[in-house]
Amino acid sequence: MAERSLATLDASPFLSLISSIVDRLPSSSQTLFSAKTSQNLTFAEIGTALSRSEVAIAALFYGQSTASPEDIKALSVLLKVPEEQLTSELAQGFPDRGRAGPMPPVEPLIYRLYEIVQNYGYAYKAVLNEKFGDGIMSAISFSTKVEKEVDEQGTWAVITLRGKW
Amino acid sequence: MAERSLATLDASPFLSLISSIVDRLPSSSQTLFSAKTSQNLTFAEIGTALSRSEVAIAALFYGQSTASPEDIKALSVLLKVPEEQLTSELAQGFPDRGRAGPMPPVEPLIYRLYEIVQNYGYAYKAVLNEKFGDGIMSAISFSTKVEKEVDEQGTWAVITLRGKW
Amino acid sequence: MAERSLATLDASPFLSLISSIVDRLPSSSQTLFSAKTSQNLTFAEIGTALSRSEVAIAALFYGQSTASPEDIKALSVLLKVPEEQLTSELAQGFPDRGRAGPMPPVEPLIYRLYEIVQNYGYAYKAVLNEKFGDGIMSAISFSTKVEKEVDEQGTWAVITLRGKW
Amino acid sequence: MAERSLATLDASPFLSLISSIVDRLPSSSQTLFSAKTSQNLTFAEIGTALSRSEVAIAALFYGQSTASPEDIKALSVLLKVPEEQLTSELAQGFPDRGRAGPMPPVEPLIYRLYEIVQNYGYAYKAVLNEKFGDGIMSAISFSTKVEKEVDEQGTWAVITLRGKW
Amino acid sequence: MAERSLATLDASPFLSLISSIVDRLPSSSQTLFSAKTSQNLTFAEIGTALSRSEVAIAALFYGQSTASPEDIKALSVLLKVPEEQLTSELAQGFPDRGRAGPMPPVEPLIYRLYEIVQNYGYAYKAVLNEKFGDGIMSAISFSTKVEKEVDEQGTWAVITLRGKW
Amino acid sequence: MAERSLATLDASPFLSLISSIVDRLPSSSQTLFSAKTSQNLTFAEIGTALSRSEVAIAALFYGQSTASPEDIKALSVLLKVPEEQLTSELAQGFPDRGRAGPMPPVEPLIYRLYEIVQNYGYAYKAVLNEKFGDGIMSAISFSTKVEKEVDEQGTWAVITLRGKW
Amino acid sequence: MAERSLATLDASPFLSLISSIVDRLPSSSQTLFSAKTSQNLTFAEIGTALSRSEVAIAALFYGQSTASPEDIKALSVLLKVPEEQLTSELAQGFPDRGRAGPMPPVEPLIYRLYEIVQNYGYAYKAVLNEKFGDGIMSAISFSTKVEKEVDEQGTWAVITLRGKW
Amino acid sequence: MAERSLATLDASPFLSLISSIVDRLPSSSQTLFSAKTSQNLTFAEIGTALSRSEVAIAALFYGQSTASPEDIKALSVLLKVPEEQLTSELAQGFPDRGRAGPMPPVEPLIYRLYEIVQNYGYAYKAVLNEKFGDGIMSAISFSTKVEKEVDEQGTWAVITLRGKW
Amino acid sequence: MAERSLATLDASPFLSLISSIVDRLPSSSQTLFSAKTSQNLTFAEIGTALSRSEVAIAALFYGQSTASPEDIKALSVLLKVPEEQLTSELAQGFPDRGRAGPMPPVEPLIYRLYEIVQNYGYAYKAVLNEKFGDGIMSAISFSTKVEKEVDEQGTWAVITLRGKW
Amino acid sequence: MAERSLATLDASPFLSLISSIVDRLPSSSQTLFSAKTSQNLTFAEIGTALSRSEVAIAALFYGQSTASPEDIKALSVLLKVPEEQLTSELAQGFPDRGRAGPMPPVEPLIYRLYEIVQNYGYAYKAVLNEKFGDGIMSAISFSTKVEKEVDEQGTWAVITLRGKW
Repeated sequence: MAERSLATLDASPFLSLISSIVDRLPSSSQTLFSAKTSQNLTFAEIGTALSRSEVAIAALFYGQSTASPEDIKALSVLLKVPEEQLTSELAQGFPDRGRAGPMPPVEPLIYRLYEIVQNYGYAYKAVLNEKFGDGIMSAISFSTKVEKEVDEQGTWAVITLRGKW
Repeated sequence: MAERSLATLDASPFLSLISSIVDRLPSSSQTLFSAKTSQNLTFAEIGTALSRSEVAIAALFYGQSTASPEDIKALSVLLKVPEEQLTSELAQGFPDRGRAGPMPPVEPLIYRLYEIVQNYGYAYKAVLNEKFGDGIMSAISFSTKVEKEVDEQGTWAVITLRGKW
Repeated sequence: MAERSLATLDASPFLSLISSIVDRLPSSSQTLFSAKTSQNLTFAEIGTALSRSEVAIAALFYGQSTASPEDIKALSVLLKVPEEQLTSELAQGFPDRGRAGPMPPVEPLIYRLYEIVQNYGYAYKAVLNEKFGDGIMSAISFSTKVEKEVDEQGTWAVITLRGKW
Repeated sequence: MAERSLATLDASPFLSLISSIVDRLPSSSQTLFSAKTSQNLTFAEIGTALSRSEVAIAALFYGQSTASPEDIKALSVLLKVPEEQLTSELAQGFPDRGRAGPMPPVEPLIYRLYEIVQNYGYAYKAVLNEKFGDGIMSAISFSTKVEKEVDEQGTWAVITLRGKW
Repeated sequence: MAERSLATLDASPFLSLISSIVDRLPSSSQTLFSAKTSQNLTFAEIGTALSRSEVAIAALFYGQSTASPEDIKALSVLLKVPEEQLTSELAQGFPDRGRAGPMPPVEPLIYRLYEIVQNYGYAYKAVLNEKFGDGIMSAISFSTKVEKEVDEQGTWAVITLRGKW
Repeated sequence: MAERSLATLDASPFLSLISSIVDRLPSSSQTLFSAKTSQNLTFAEIGTALSRSEVAIAALFYGQSTASPEDIKALSVLLKVPEEQLTSELAQGFPDRGRAGPMPPVEPLIYRLYEIVQNYGYAYKAVLNEKFGDGIMSAISFSTKVEKEVDEQGTWAVITLRGKW
Repeated sequence: MAERSLATLDASPFLSLISSIVDRLPSSSQTLFSAKTSQNLTFAEIGTALSRSEVAIAALFYGQSTASPEDIKALSVLLKVPEEQLTSELAQGFPDRGRAGPMPPVEPLIYRLYEIVQNYGYAYKAVLNEKFGDGIMSAISFSTKVEKEVDEQGTWAVITLRGKW
Repeated sequence: MAERSLATLDASPFLSLISSIVDRLPSSSQTLFSAKTSQNLTFAEIGTALSRSEVAIAALFYGQSTASPEDIKALSVLLKVPEEQLTSELAQGFPDRGRAGPMPPVEPLIYRLYEIVQNYGYAYKAVLNEKFGDGIMSAISFSTKVEKEVDEQGTWAVITLRGKW
Repeated sequence: MAERSLATLDASPFLSLISSIVDRLPSSSQTLFSAKTSQNLTFAEIGTALSRSEVAIAALFYGQSTASPEDIKALSVLLKVPEEQLTSELAQGFPDRGRAGPMPPVEPLIYRLYEIVQNYGYAYKAVLNEKFGDGIMSAISFSTKVEKEVDEQGTWAVITLRGKW
Repeated sequence: MAERSLATLDASPFLSLISSIVDRLPSSSQTLFSAKTSQNLTFAEIGTALSRSEVAIAALFYGQSTASPEDIKALSVLLKVPEEQLTSELAQGFPDRGRAGPMPPVEPLIYRLYEIVQNYGYAYKAVLNEKFGDGIMSAISFSTKVEKEVDEQGTWAVITLRGKW
């Protein structure tokens, strides 16, 4: 008889901030994640309210993206955090990106994305150069989203990256 | 007066194998890239002929993906390489993946993909866990494609990653 | 005359959390290990009560695995920790895996497992590819157990890894 | 419509030596893999003939394990390589282990094994210490095997590690 | 429809110290950034008042450059911090340079500068040797500035490095 | 009495390819450097003829930049290398950038540029964010030049970086 | 005239715990070193009382070795620390070995031992394989001692390593 | 039934040079190992003839130690290599030590020695400082030997390190 | 017009402990640097009083060198710190050397010394071996000093290293 | 009885190029070392003839320093190598410094110099800053020499570094 697998949790709207990475994040992260847990909101719901993708919202929560004054206003209402506090915490400087975790990633889910770059990086470069010429796809003037597809083979995660050439 | 930018080549169907990475690749790579240059084919054209994405074709050329017997037959016709040679070179073992280049990538275009993982890795994890539960997106049972979009803001590269959850 | 060996402790049900790694672990680890010491329970006993392998229990204690609501209920009874506290600590997010220790491991026992991958990795790949085709053994949809065998040559540790292909 | 996955090859008895790692291996590896391909033998078949596990045979092919004079005699018959040649190549020294590939592994299949050590290393240590006391599981006085199991959930790879305590 | 880009903040005079790097900096950094935020001053304004470049001012704020007694006097007036406090904090030793962030940089903006060195380092060396002979451009007896240019192609950042040969 | 300094060569038009890095470069580099030595040309002279900066020419020689068909035509005349040969060598693919040397640089002159990024990276980021908002200076849509200035304090190297924001 | 050498301290029974590594050690280390200093005991004296080598005692103080109940009883008497406290601190888990310092070692004395492995590792392997066959010398089922010899050439440190084959 | 262990070779006088490390060694290594194999000599036999320890002989074979003119004369007779050839190869410079293998070692037998330094380095330092005062044990003015002991518990390898203090 | 250089401070007797490295140093460092600042003493003055070189004094302040009882007595008088306090802090163990900063150094001044080893290491080895035979210059039985020379070319720093062969 | 030490060669004028590092050096190194061996010259003798320090000569042999036309003329006479050959090999470009060996050094003699920087780097910085102000000692506008001193304590190597401030 097979043991139960080590990964068993279902999707859940109750994601809160993983405690072991708090130290690497700006103080706004703690505020945002706590309020999200209290208000029992998903990133998708917050994204819809702010007209931004879920990933942009999660990136904002991790201090990797920026909030406009309108975003801050909307977040204040949704998360029930005073607008002044959010302004002060979220506007304390431009993002100091790239610090959420170590590279190469040790987290398996994030490692899979890294592995895609490791295995297919030159294939992407070859196709992009052939299609677009010499240059790069911007990782800054850039948007991204995550979708869920289900077909007869099972469930698929679909990640789309869209960057200025 | 501004200098001409250092990146100036347009898109071109004549991509051949970059000489400085030949040593890291299986012998099939040299055969495939040379034949592609001689036949003046793009990855897109080969992909159409084999009903696979351009990226899958490029990955095959770099030894990171596999070819079915039907793929080999079609490649033999398109590239004008004897089927026996392709069979022998492409079937000399299962791919020894992950060797096309160093990590972190030194090539700027590939580095941008790496940077996306570095900056947004935890945001992707948060959204994926919230949407799918505990688990990972497979980087093996996985397909990917590259598209070009043009709008009033300019040209955009759109990369889609689709993996089994 | 030979000195006494530097490794001399016998098996013991009193394993508690090694103090020097507390900082790398989620707060639930401290709670779980303290309660286990107070209740004088082994991982095997807890595993039996939860119908999971000892390793899955230890992984849960180190924040590398997840607990279902039934697991939490059973743990609460066994460890005499209020269910609400366990729920709050164990459900504070999906596991942020891979952080229990450095890689390469400096702990000799864990290094031996690393060494097996270093020495026999390509041998495993060759046999797995030959038996299963191209693909991977999942480390996520995965279960594992540890058994003890004694024969005339001495005592043997037997570790079984079982992953979805 | 979903793209075809990038990993598509089925199990195959025709595994030969992956060309890009020849340089890291002793000269015996080239001899053994070529002969195996010519004779169209699987590791399982060779293992049966030598009364050793497939993994031990693959490890021998990669220069990570040793062959007894009886092993060499049997290999000579099976692979149709003169016994003197095998003796000279296989007995040219004790194995210089650990050189088959880089660590951390870049090959995804081998990386999964590494990830198991990274994620569950301390869990294994905790269970092993609790069951066996202070000490280690030998990675040298050690045997291992790979099995295939199929159940209603799909196909599973089962790896067993058995080391002297 | 395209998502809003992840980088959306406009230029702003309200830059304060990014909280996640405070620990790597001398205590003067906290004082200087807080006072700058309170007084709502830009680096450009402070630079003008001290007759130094904006970058020199920012470097001073990050503890990478030094302040003369005249600089301290002027800063005390501008930032409304007592001169004795500034003297004590800024004169607590010579700069312990090189500690503001990790190398290679994880911050994308700083990485771009690193990438210029990686890609064009030998080109700079070749041109500098050809023009100046054997030697180096000092990074210590060195000044630098940042300018903004706008032309029909858009906005350009122009960085000038001037070092003693 | 002081010893003669270890760095004593004057500026010289006779720079040829440094032999110890040939292996890291594309085959075009050998062709271009040899022809430049034979024709006794400086990068400045070639730059003038192609209306590009010296650094762009040197970057092209090291395989880090690209040549337009007009560049190739002009180089063929200047360097007395057949246009077909240059076309074939220079158009063999898009640049595989970032490979000219190790990072961190071991060459002292190049290390000084690296050190500038290490010491002043956050100062540049602070000034650029304050002046331009959130974003980056492109290292691809980018031009650069080197100038020599002499004043009463001695000789100065002035490097200008100009990148799209 | 020669300066006095930078290493000038004589042998001394007053060794206490070096403050800069306390954080890497288990809490028992602080207790043991403080008590040893108060009682003015050498490792040799403690070793004699416990019938163990000085190195085993020092390893126990650094949390790299284990204490039997008899060891704890004897230590309690010698060091005048309550037996319950020692039991609780020393029995808080099996040693988490390998964390006392960085590798490669930065401490010159420890680096010399590392250098011996670096320079003579293959020589040891060759001699051990020739004398014992394939296998390893255990670093766990292992004892060690340090002796002082004086001859006409000066003072010599003699370290003996004895491991199970 | 247990598999045969992966390490099975007995002690053997026929050790020859492991092919995969030839490139890292001076040319003398090839000469010495080949001649030793032809003459069927052990390191112990050569050591006896030269009045040096086996390890010193093996170190000489790996280019990590030096040979006096008398050593060369004796080696020439024993190994049947012309004295002029040995003089020319062995006297081609002072040893360029430290290159026989990577650090940390990937070879398990050598790794065990490394692990001893990692685990017990500070314990050795504490005991050595306490016994000898501040200073180091030389790894250059240094001799070493390997002995085999057999007792009721099995076979033990005993390595002695003797260095000038 | 040239900007003022980023390095502008003159020599000063008021050097105090650079705050960002306090954590890496023993507690005695804080005591010594504070007292030196209060007493307004230079390393040269302290060195004269103790008949040791300035560098030996600075090394002692950074915990890299040792103080004899006479040194402690003299320091107590000069620095106006009670002798018992100095004894207790400076005699708390033998130096745990090598921890003052990272390697490779990020501080430019210290990097220059590292660069000398990187560039001229083999040249020093060649000259030393030729002059002294096989062996090393001790870095422990070692003294060093720093002198200032001024000639018509400017100011020179002269560092002398003197080690036992 | 003590074994003979592993380092036993006396000073010798016959130093030739160590074979295992030839690949890292420019082609001139082979020419220079071979000629030096044939002519049986020491670095000291060559240095005297060229009025440069021995270390400068050795650095030139390793491709880390430059030769003036007068140096080349003098070397041609001394080493009996045609002046044209030396000109062509030594003038093939400006030195590509820093490549003679790995960092951290694995060669023990060179490591000792590295260790001096590691242990005393901050002490040198403190003394240099106190004596000279903010700035650095140049490693380029720099000369160095090695001397031998003998006193009653034995033989001492004295290395002097003299760099422009």
